[in-house]
Amino acid sequence: MLAASDPVWQAAAEHGLIDMHVDAASDYELVIRETGHRFVNMCSCSYLGLNSHPKILQGAVDALATAKSTSLSVSATRIRPNLSADLEDELGDLWRADILVGLSCSTLTSGILPLLAGGQLAEGGPRTMVFDRFAHFNLAHVKPICADESLVLTAPHNDLDYVEDVCRKHPRVAYVADGAYSMGGALPLEGLLELQDRYGLFLYIDDSHSLSAVGEHGEGYVRSRAELNPLTMVVASLVKGFGTGGAVAMLGDRGLVRLLRRHAGPVGWSQSPDNMVLGASLASAALHRTPELGELQRRLRDNVELFDRLVPTPHAGNDFAVRVVPVGEADRAIDLSVRMFERGYYCSAVFFPIVAKGEAGLRILLRADLPSKLVTDFASSVTTESMA
Amino acid sequence: MLAASDPVWQAAAEHGLIDMHVDAASDYELVIRETGHRFVNMCSCSYLGLNSHPKILQGAVDALATAKSTSLSVSATRIRPNLSADLEDELGDLWRADILVGLSCSTLTSGILPLLAGGQLAEGGPRTMVFDRFAHFNLAHVKPICADESLVLTAPHNDLDYVEDVCRKHPRVAYVADGAYSMGGALPLEGLLELQDRYGLFLYIDDSHSLSAVGEHGEGYVRSRAELNPLTMVVASLVKGFGTGGAVAMLGDRGLVRLLRRHAGPVGWSQSPDNMVLGASLASAALHRTPELGELQRRLRDNVELFDRLVPTPHAGNDFAVRVVPVGEADRAIDLSVRMFERGYYCSAVFFPIVAKGEAGLRILLRADLPSKLVTDFASSVTTESMA
Repeated sequence: MLAASDPVWQAAAEHGLIDMHVDAASDYELVIRETGHRFVNMCSCSYLGLNSHPKILQGAVDALATAKSTSLSVSATRIRPNLSADLEDELGDLWRADILVGLSCSTLTSGILPLLAGGQLAEGGPRTMVFDRFAHFNLAHVKPICADESLVLTAPHNDLDYVEDVCRKHPRVAYVADGAYSMGGALPLEGLLELQDRYGLFLYIDDSHSLSAVGEHGEGYVRSRAELNPLTMVVASLVKGFGTGGAVAMLGDRGLVRLLRRHAGPVGWSQSPDNMVLGASLASAALHRTPELGELQRRLRDNVELFDRLVPTPHAGNDFAVRVVPVGEADRAIDLSVRMFERGYYCSAVFFPIVAKGEAGLRILLRADLPSKLVTDFASSVTTESMA
Repeated sequence: MLAASDPVWQAAAEHGLIDMHVDAASDYELVIRETGHRFVNMCSCSYLGLNSHPKILQGAVDALATAKSTSLSVSATRIRPNLSADLEDELGDLWRADILVGLSCSTLTSGILPLLAGGQLAEGGPRTMVFDRFAHFNLAHVKPICADESLVLTAPHNDLDYVEDVCRKHPRVAYVADGAYSMGGALPLEGLLELQDRYGLFLYIDDSHSLSAVGEHGEGYVRSRAELNPLTMVVASLVKGFGTGGAVAMLGDRGLVRLLRRHAGPVGWSQSPDNMVLGASLASAALHRTPELGELQRRLRDNVELFDRLVPTPHAGNDFAVRVVPVGEADRAIDLSVRMFERGYYCSAVFFPIVAKGEAGLRILLRADLPSKLVTDFASSVTTESMA
């Protein structure tokens, strides 16, 4: 994989398109210190612009004044700041869930999935683990650890027939997938819930790309359509739409939170979110209770709809903010990314192993905090350059 | 493992000794909000007290003013704030290394070790991976992922003969261990460097428990005794002695930094340290250049020597701040921890799987920011209660 992908990364590097170091320039622009080149980052996952919201930055500052330290530097299994307990209570109330806060989705998932595979999180013993082929890297990375505990299979993308077939052949099955996929689209939730009803299928969903952006209180795509139950667990990053850092697991049972805090590997023995992130997160949670959330979600939807009207892409019309302009070979994607960058927009060229070989493209993430004039100008640049 | 350890965690929980939620009370004390009970945390890994240093807290605040966001919410492989690049430069200069900053040691290690096992980080192809039996959880957690790439073995603790035997039988070997162990003691560095000379043994060392606390510029135990070379890599957490958050890999080659940023799994696709932590870290790096570092290290050594004079423990006299009072069975360790807590000191009961069964104990971490009077009173309490 490294041998296949490094030459393409190197080509991107030679055009200055990776490992860029930037400062903030204006509300919408970043600037490269060495060259002075200013551009708009069209690949930020901060879908609502909350990563620069003054109240959220102030939350981080306030937390330092209260906690008087960056962190307690002790295992969160043993001692946590009240900021952490308060955040779990606040988000639990907001999202109707028992909440476990962690350093990142990777941390939560690498602690939780081996327990799920080993049969510790639901009745009946070890579970056959079925990963969607497009499940995010952080999920797929844990496959070998799960394979120490039970059988691990990879399903074709969104293939309900494949999953049902495994459910027929194996007594206990867990399906591991994204809610909203990082390269666009979503999981077939209704069909999966039917399989859960019929076969007791466990669903472990990473819904990072829709948290905050979707749902009345920003609970994300899956949680806005499904309640938690003993066979459904959702994890989501707080660094994207939510605007801060760290991650949450949403659980349907307080006993599970206790069990995971003690036994889910890095949840106990690795770092936990620092006090600044906890303070920023409490401020973001508070903002999620105000009408401002709905207003930002509406602005995001407006920008996505505007872009879709101007630039047709395979995922146009869906509920999410991720669009990919298909290009074909990796070198064409890099070339297009270079020309867009010269015009003042960073959109990332995505290529193997991020997407399949021969299916490279230009990845674009819309946001609430971009003025519609900017979206219009950007769409026009995409159209011009992708035809050049 | 879960079935064996959960009853002991539960016993600790019933005594209020785990999942404590606290506020800051004074320079030395924490307080439990619900009960008002005040205590000194004798298990903080912030060995120099830098987690509450005013300059370091100010660094976090200043970074928010500069960066105007919590983070860029984009893969660090693609775009990073100058705060991150500046931190890598600063720490590289301070510690004579090429530096890769990451979210945590777990994140760095779970990205790096599979590449090392697969033969991507040094000449000659895949390597047999030998993990010390006491290597920290975050290292051992990645064994199954490494096992997809090559043979994985577990060595008895600090057993150079075992490692040499593997080197004789296998063409390429990597040894994975802690520098200073989290339960006390260190690795046999000289012997390992001899094996490196003789057999080309790769050394991958997590030196989190000695960073900042040891070395002229806080470079840690291993780096204060050994230069980097193409067969030596050190990772260390910045949340302990350094006082902030995130982690670093110290490498002997800038090309390796580039390779890891692109291909070391979660280093690219998971979160990276937030702007507040980067700002705090730049402030801590600056402090590491001043005489204050040596002064704090001296105060830490004084406190450790004072404690060692008053309470003999197996690791008394060594260079580190970790001491364990052996107790035997887990229930006795919990009982002792309960009585110390009543006296106003939190020391954690450590038991299986943190240590071997029947070898439970009371874990104590000394710090620079404890007045010597407090250390004396604490030692006297340990003596009284451990004889009770």
